[in-house]
Amino acid sequence: MPSLLLLSNSRNPGGEFLAHARGAIAGLLGAEPRRLAFVPYAGVTITPDAYVARVREALSPLGHSVESLHEGDPVEVLRQATGVIVGGGNTFRLLERLYQTDLLQRIRQKVLGGIPYLGWSAGANLACPTIRTTNDMPIVAPPSLAGLGLVPFQINPHYTDDVLPNHGGESRADRIAEFLLLNPAVPVVGLREGSWLRVEKGRVTLEGRHPMKLFRAGVPPEEIAAGADLTGLLG
Amino acid sequence: MPSLLLLSNSRNPGGEFLAHARGAIAGLLGAEPRRLAFVPYAGVTITPDAYVARVREALSPLGHSVESLHEGDPVEVLRQATGVIVGGGNTFRLLERLYQTDLLQRIRQKVLGGIPYLGWSAGANLACPTIRTTNDMPIVAPPSLAGLGLVPFQINPHYTDDVLPNHGGESRADRIAEFLLLNPAVPVVGLREGSWLRVEKGRVTLEGRHPMKLFRAGVPPEEIAAGADLTGLLG
Repeated sequence: MPSLLLLSNSRNPGGEFLAHARGAIAGLLGAEPRRLAFVPYAGVTITPDAYVARVREALSPLGHSVESLHEGDPVEVLRQATGVIVGGGNTFRLLERLYQTDLLQRIRQKVLGGIPYLGWSAGANLACPTIRTTNDMPIVAPPSLAGLGLVPFQINPHYTDDVLPNHGGESRADRIAEFLLLNPAVPVVGLREGSWLRVEKGRVTLEGRHPMKLFRAGVPPEEIAAGADLTGLLG
Repeated sequence: MPSLLLLSNSRNPGGEFLAHARGAIAGLLGAEPRRLAFVPYAGVTITPDAYVARVREALSPLGHSVESLHEGDPVEVLRQATGVIVGGGNTFRLLERLYQTDLLQRIRQKVLGGIPYLGWSAGANLACPTIRTTNDMPIVAPPSLAGLGLVPFQINPHYTDDVLPNHGGESRADRIAEFLLLNPAVPVVGLREGSWLRVEKGRVTLEGRHPMKLFRAGVPPEEIAAGADLTGLLG
């Protein structure tokens, strides 16, 4: 039964990196010091060195150690880890690198084996059956869109109902409606910025500053308040 | 030497379907009546019947006949066509269907053989080497992201510099910058709504109501005015 913290975003407007969810992260990782393996592969415009430095700084008050997969033999870093962190960026790039390095199944096995998983944005997409509800541009082509499948539903991170005025592009809800027409068996959680899902002991809870929007095939989207028990989504 | 009209969008705010580009479409297709094959596969929330009806209505003043691939044997509809129209919608769905039906190469051969090509939004993405600069959600997984390759550069349709206030998602320019980091050899045309590229007799011209933004690796993005000759993009 995996323990997951799936964040919509890493930084709220005007806030510091991961600051809005630090309490929840502390709860996920617990008091005992952990060796956290960081997956920097979603980063495109940020170097892995800069990315892991940012993560170390944000989590330093929590007393765990962080090692990025690029700082050693990735298989060995992961083998020794007692927690895994998957950073945001471009979801296609993240998945491509995990297939290239043959690490996708290793991460999955570790998390199913009981080590906690923290992901934001692309890292939240990755925990889903596929990355078919990412917002990112498909700048590279992973061999499959299948993700870790740690939960049986999809997440759309950075969810918003806002649209650009005088612009003909589809709204986020339009895009998710298209997804559901072609993938009717899979619910989609529209996870607003500042919110996250906690999956622990077989329960799913929405936390953070906003309600989420739940999209299912054939029924109208549903607003669900923070604090709600979403365990039914584990189906 | 193919003749292409690649539109950012099908409808301007407050305008009618394809109305803003009707003159350019008339020029592409010429005075002689053509048999136009319509590719409806990008449509997800619109039925193929409704989609082709909309196209017929919009193009009826031009005096050509339009047959959708779904209205007959697609190979035969395409074989008899003297022009091809690829509608917008979801680019991943469009490409998946073209691979499933084995029509991608047939369309390419027809257009390289001289019949005119009209595409908007997803249909403009399709004409590029790949669909890696689409804005769409990857709701399905085509076996490859390779498109028709009728031009050697990428298009980002519905291009805009606007971003949602108080939202952490990447801007369009950020996404294209990510693309260029991983695909530095391929320029990207940010094609604003109301604009299109005309490719004819080995020349490329920007037309319509807005300048475009040209993104190339290693140099700042460049605003290019409508009317400009972009033939250099054909490399």
